[in-house]
Amino acid sequence: MGVVVDGCPPRLALETAEIQADLDRRRPGQSRLTTPRQEDDKVEIVSGLFEGRTLGSPIAMLVRNQDARPGAYEEMRDLYRPSHADYTTEAKYGLRAWHGGGRSSARETIGRVAGGAIARKFLREVAGIEIVAWVQRVQDVDAKVDLENVSVEQVDESLARCPDGEASERMIERIDAVRRKGDSVGGVVECVARSVPPGLGEPIFEKLDADLASAMLSLPAAKGFEVGSGFGGVALTGSEHNDPFVPGDAGRPRTPSNRSGGIQGGISNGEPIILRVAFKPTATIRTEQDTVSRDNQPVKLAASGRHDPCVLPRAVPIVESMVALVLADHWLRQRAVDVLPDL
Amino acid sequence: MGVVVDGCPPRLALETAEIQADLDRRRPGQSRLTTPRQEDDKVEIVSGLFEGRTLGSPIAMLVRNQDARPGAYEEMRDLYRPSHADYTTEAKYGLRAWHGGGRSSARETIGRVAGGAIARKFLREVAGIEIVAWVQRVQDVDAKVDLENVSVEQVDESLARCPDGEASERMIERIDAVRRKGDSVGGVVECVARSVPPGLGEPIFEKLDADLASAMLSLPAAKGFEVGSGFGGVALTGSEHNDPFVPGDAGRPRTPSNRSGGIQGGISNGEPIILRVAFKPTATIRTEQDTVSRDNQPVKLAASGRHDPCVLPRAVPIVESMVALVLADHWLRQRAVDVLPDL
Amino acid sequence: MGVVVDGCPPRLALETAEIQADLDRRRPGQSRLTTPRQEDDKVEIVSGLFEGRTLGSPIAMLVRNQDARPGAYEEMRDLYRPSHADYTTEAKYGLRAWHGGGRSSARETIGRVAGGAIARKFLREVAGIEIVAWVQRVQDVDAKVDLENVSVEQVDESLARCPDGEASERMIERIDAVRRKGDSVGGVVECVARSVPPGLGEPIFEKLDADLASAMLSLPAAKGFEVGSGFGGVALTGSEHNDPFVPGDAGRPRTPSNRSGGIQGGISNGEPIILRVAFKPTATIRTEQDTVSRDNQPVKLAASGRHDPCVLPRAVPIVESMVALVLADHWLRQRAVDVLPDL
Amino acid sequence: MGVVVDGCPPRLALETAEIQADLDRRRPGQSRLTTPRQEDDKVEIVSGLFEGRTLGSPIAMLVRNQDARPGAYEEMRDLYRPSHADYTTEAKYGLRAWHGGGRSSARETIGRVAGGAIARKFLREVAGIEIVAWVQRVQDVDAKVDLENVSVEQVDESLARCPDGEASERMIERIDAVRRKGDSVGGVVECVARSVPPGLGEPIFEKLDADLASAMLSLPAAKGFEVGSGFGGVALTGSEHNDPFVPGDAGRPRTPSNRSGGIQGGISNGEPIILRVAFKPTATIRTEQDTVSRDNQPVKLAASGRHDPCVLPRAVPIVESMVALVLADHWLRQRAVDVLPDL
Repeated sequence: MGVVVDGCPPRLALETAEIQADLDRRRPGQSRLTTPRQEDDKVEIVSGLFEGRTLGSPIAMLVRNQDARPGAYEEMRDLYRPSHADYTTEAKYGLRAWHGGGRSSARETIGRVAGGAIARKFLREVAGIEIVAWVQRVQDVDAKVDLENVSVEQVDESLARCPDGEASERMIERIDAVRRKGDSVGGVVECVARSVPPGLGEPIFEKLDADLASAMLSLPAAKGFEVGSGFGGVALTGSEHNDPFVPGDAGRPRTPSNRSGGIQGGISNGEPIILRVAFKPTATIRTEQDTVSRDNQPVKLAASGRHDPCVLPRAVPIVESMVALVLADHWLRQRAVDVLPDL
Repeated sequence: MGVVVDGCPPRLALETAEIQADLDRRRPGQSRLTTPRQEDDKVEIVSGLFEGRTLGSPIAMLVRNQDARPGAYEEMRDLYRPSHADYTTEAKYGLRAWHGGGRSSARETIGRVAGGAIARKFLREVAGIEIVAWVQRVQDVDAKVDLENVSVEQVDESLARCPDGEASERMIERIDAVRRKGDSVGGVVECVARSVPPGLGEPIFEKLDADLASAMLSLPAAKGFEVGSGFGGVALTGSEHNDPFVPGDAGRPRTPSNRSGGIQGGISNGEPIILRVAFKPTATIRTEQDTVSRDNQPVKLAASGRHDPCVLPRAVPIVESMVALVLADHWLRQRAVDVLPDL
Repeated sequence: MGVVVDGCPPRLALETAEIQADLDRRRPGQSRLTTPRQEDDKVEIVSGLFEGRTLGSPIAMLVRNQDARPGAYEEMRDLYRPSHADYTTEAKYGLRAWHGGGRSSARETIGRVAGGAIARKFLREVAGIEIVAWVQRVQDVDAKVDLENVSVEQVDESLARCPDGEASERMIERIDAVRRKGDSVGGVVECVARSVPPGLGEPIFEKLDADLASAMLSLPAAKGFEVGSGFGGVALTGSEHNDPFVPGDAGRPRTPSNRSGGIQGGISNGEPIILRVAFKPTATIRTEQDTVSRDNQPVKLAASGRHDPCVLPRAVPIVESMVALVLADHWLRQRAVDVLPDL
Repeated sequence: MGVVVDGCPPRLALETAEIQADLDRRRPGQSRLTTPRQEDDKVEIVSGLFEGRTLGSPIAMLVRNQDARPGAYEEMRDLYRPSHADYTTEAKYGLRAWHGGGRSSARETIGRVAGGAIARKFLREVAGIEIVAWVQRVQDVDAKVDLENVSVEQVDESLARCPDGEASERMIERIDAVRRKGDSVGGVVECVARSVPPGLGEPIFEKLDADLASAMLSLPAAKGFEVGSGFGGVALTGSEHNDPFVPGDAGRPRTPSNRSGGIQGGISNGEPIILRVAFKPTATIRTEQDTVSRDNQPVKLAASGRHDPCVLPRAVPIVESMVALVLADHWLRQRAVDVLPDL
C-alpha cells in the first residue's frame, strides 16, 4: 500500500511513530473482534520529511503486505462476491486484479489513516482541534456517550471502541455471536470535532458537511451519513429544531443546543461538529451464498478467507482520519479567504 | 440568479421551455403548501446555444428576481437568525449581504434546477436514464412507493409531491397544521435513477455514492443522506443484507434485492440507484425566538417574511437535478475510461 | 460578454470605475491604430459586491455589445477564415456560432481584463506589487525601455503603447503603413512585475513561469513566451548567464543581473519578474486569400469587416491582466504554505 | 524517485521494458556529452498493472538512486548556488533538503519520462500519433531538419541528438569545448507531433498550445516556448503569415504552410504540431562564482560535482514525454466532448 499526501505545510514536526500509532488502531488482528489476519502494517515515510520536519513537498508513505495469501483468493477469480466490488470493477475497467480484492480491498484505508494522522497533528498544532470517534451502535445495541468530554483514550479502553462500558459489553457479545455463526454485523460510528473555529466551509457546493459526507461515503461499507440532528431531526418542528443563539464569552454567539452539528449553511459555527456514519454488515461471510460466475452462470460461494465479523471498531480511526483530512483542507483554504484587514 | 453550466457536450437539442418546466416545479407560490412569495422564475439562456443546439461552450442562464422585498429583511441587518447562515457567513467573510439572505438564500437552488434540467435531458438522450424523486416522509408521515414504476407525473399529481395518495393527504394536513401555527416541519425525499449503466463512479475517493452524498448535503437544510439500505441496514446481519447475484438476460448479473442501492464499491452495478435525503424543518418560523445581535447582545426575533412551512415538495426537483448533474459527470468521465477494445 | 471571478478575498474595496479604467485601455476604437469598431465596453458588476466591498462570493460582470454587425459575418458562415479558429471549432464541436467569431472572438479578452483589474487592485493592496507591460517590438522595430522605472502612465502616453518615444513613432508609422495596405503586423509585448515577494510558485508542475506561459499562450494570436533571458539566453555560456547573488539590504540575497527573470526553479526570488509574449500579425486582413468552404471546396476570401492592423497596443492591458491573475492565485496559494512558525 | 500516473485507461498492454527504453535515453552517463554520474535508472512498476495490462488504477513507478554521493553536496548546505532553486526553495518553505538538490533536482524528470512513455504508447495505439524531438540548436549552432520525416531512430544516431549530421558534429565539438573549460552551454529543442487529429484543445484557457507551454516551462532550465512561427513570426505581415486552406483528401481542409504549428485558436487542426523550447546553459559550472551564504554573507563557490555541460541531448526524451502527456490528456478530454451524433 502506498499513499502520497500533498499540501501539508512545511516545518511541521513529524515522526513515523505518530503515524504508526493510528495505523495500529486500524490494523487487523488487534483483538478477537477483528479479522485474525495478522499484519503489522509498519509504515515507512519515503519522501517529504527532512530532519524530522515536513518539507512542504509530497509525503509518500509505504506499508508492505506481510500476511497476504494470494491462494486464498483463487476461488474469486471467476465469480463475483455478492455486495463486493468484483462485478462493478469488471464492468468499469473490463478486467480485475482478483487476488486480494485489488484496489477495492479495505486495505486501501491504510492510506487514509496514514494521511489522516498527519492532518490530525497539523490541526492540533495550529488550532487545538480534537477529533474523537467511537462505535455508537452495533446492530441494535446503542451507546450513551458524553460528546463534550469523550477522549480517544476512553474509546480505546474498549475492545469494541465504545466508551459506554455497558453498551461496549453488549456489542462485544453481539459481535462474538455473529462471528461464531460465520455471519457479520454492521453499525454506526459517531464522531465529534471540538475547537473547530467558525468560518470553515464553502457556502454552496463544497459545504463543510457536503465534504464530510463525501469523505464518509467514500469509505468501504458506508451506507449513510448524518450531521447534527440528521434523519432524527425530521421528526421535530422548526421551533423545536432551531438552535437559539446566546451571547458567548469570546464575543461571539454560542448555541446551547447543537442540532446543527456545528455547521450552518455549510460553514462551521464554532460549536462541536457532530456526524454519524452507517456501516453495513461486512459483505464477506462464511455462510454459503448464491452468486454468478464471470460467464453469467449461477454458482455457490462460501468464503473461506479471514474476515472481520464487524468492521466498526477498526472503522473508528478511519472516520477520525477522514474528518481530519477534510478539516485540514478547509482550514488551509480559509487562509486564502481571511486575508484583508477586518472592517 | 445566474448559473453557468460548463462541460455539456455540443449538439444537444435544447429549448428554454425544457429548463422552465423544471423551474416551475421548484418555484415559490405554486401551491398553498409553499411560501406565498410569488416568483415566475422565468429563465433566459444568455450563452452556449446556437440555433437550438448546445455549442459545447458554457451555458449561462439568468433568472431575474421579481417579488423581492428588501425592506422585509431590514430587521435581519444586525442580528443572526437561528439555524440560518447569517452568523457563519459573517464569521467566514467578515461581512454579509444581509438583504434577502445573500448567497445563502435558498434561491440559489434555481441554478441547480436549471443546470440539472440540461443534465437530465442529456442522460435521457444518451442512455435512457430516468430520475424520479418524491416526498417519502413529512415529520412522521411515511409513504409507500413503487420504486420500479413511479413516474414524475404521478409525483406531480400530489400537492405534497408524494405519489402515495393516502400518505399525501396526511402530509398535506400536517403541513397545513404547522403553517397555521407559524411553525415548520421537515421530512425525507427519496429518489430513484433507473437504467444507469454499470461502471459509473470511481473506486476510492469519488465514488458514485460519495459524489451523490456531497451533492445532497450541499442542498440547503439537508442533514442526512442514505444510499440503498442506509441507516436501516445496520440492523441486519451480512447474510440478510447481501444482494445475491443471479444470471441476467443481458449477459450480466442482476440482483433481485437491492440493498446496495445500485452502487457497489462506489461504482454503479446496473440496478436502480436509490437514495434518501433528510431535510430539517425550515429554519424561518413566525414563532418568537432567542438570538443574538451582531454586537453579541441577546435579542428576540419573530420573522415576518413569507416562508415555506415545509420545503419538501419544492425539494423534489432540486434533488432530481443534483442526481442528474452527478450522473452526467460520471457518465462523461467513464467515456475517458472505456477507451480501448475489450479483452 | 460575461465573466465570473471566483476566489477574490472578501473586504476588498472595489469600484466599477477601477475595472472600467483597464477596459478603456483595451477597447476598440481608442485610436487610429486599432479597429475602427466603436464599443464603449461599459462594465456592469452584477454580483459579489456589497456596499463597495467584495463579499468573497463570485464577482459576475457583464459588458454588452453595442456595435455588433451580425451581417458583416454572413460571408463567414460557410467558409473557414485562414489562421482563425473557424475550422478547428467546427472540428471540435461539430457546429459553430459563425456570427462574430463566436467564443473565439478576441472580445473574450474583455473578461480577462475585467478580472485582471480586480487581481491588480488586490496585489497592490496586499503586497504593493506593480505590473507594467508595453509594446517592445512591432515587426522589426525594437524599443529600449528602463524596466526598473517604466510606468503605466508613460506607456499610455504613446498611441503604440511603447514608452520609447523614438521607437513609438516608428511603430506608429509601420502600423499606419500596413493598415493602408489592408495588411497587418505582429510584435512582442514585454511585461515587468515589481515587488513580487520571494516564494511564489510551485516547484514542479505549476511553476510560476509555467503558469505565466500558460496564461500568455492562452491569449488570442500568441505564438511564443519567454521569461528572463529567454531564447536569447541560449547564446551565452553558464558562466555568462548565471545571476550571482550578493548580500541584500533586507537580509536576503539579491541578484544585480536578472537573466533568471525573477524566477528560479519555478519560484519567485524577489527580483522583478520579466516576460515577453510574441503576437502574430492579425489573421484578418483585407487582401484576398485562398481558403476552403465547409464542403471542402476552394474559395476566395477578402474580409470586409473592421479589424486591427496590429493588436499590440491593445494587448498591453491584456498581458498585464493575465500576469495579475496568475500572481494573485500564487500569492493566495502561498498563504496555505507559509502557515507554521519559522524554524 | 517515485511517480504516480493516474487516468491511464485500462486494458493497455504495457511492459516495463517500454518505459525503460525512454528512461535509458534520459539517464546520465550515456555519453561523454552528459554528466559522468552513472545511474542505471532501472524502473520498477509497483501498481496499476495486471498480467501485462493497465488496470485503470494509478500506475506507481519507482527508480532507485544508485550513484548518489550525499557528501558531494555538503558544501551546498549553507549557501545558495547561483541560478539554482536553493534560495527560492528556502524562501518558500523555510527549510530545504540540501543534499542532492532536493525536489528541485533535475532527477525529477525521471518521473516525467516514465509517465510520458505510457502516454506515448497510448497515443500510438489509439490514434497513431508520433512524437519526435531533437536538438535544434546548441548555443549558435543551428540544424536543418525535415519535420515531415524525421524519426526517433535518426535522432538517436547522433550523440548530440541532432539528426542533421553536419550540425551534430559542430554541436558535439561545442559541448566538448565548454566541458573542458568547466563551463556549460544551452540550446533549443524542437518537437513535432504527427497524426494528431483535429479538435484537441480548449478554446479559452486550456488551449492546446497553452498547456504545451505550461508543460515545457515546467521543465528545469526552460526559459522560452514557441509554437509554429513563434517569435520569428512577428517579422511577417498577416498576408505572409496566414496559412491558406486547401481542400484535403480526407474531406477536411489542409494547410500547405504551417506557421500555425498545427494549432489554431487553441485547438489542433490536423497538421503536425510544432514547438520549440529554449534551455539556458546548465547553472552548475566548475568556474568560481560569487554568491551568498544563508546568513546573507558573500562567499565564493566552485562546484565540484559531476554535471552536464549541456542538458540538450538528455532533454529530448523529456520534451517528447511532456508533449505526450499533454496530448493524451486532451485526447481523453475530447472523448467527453464528441459524444452526440453528428448533425
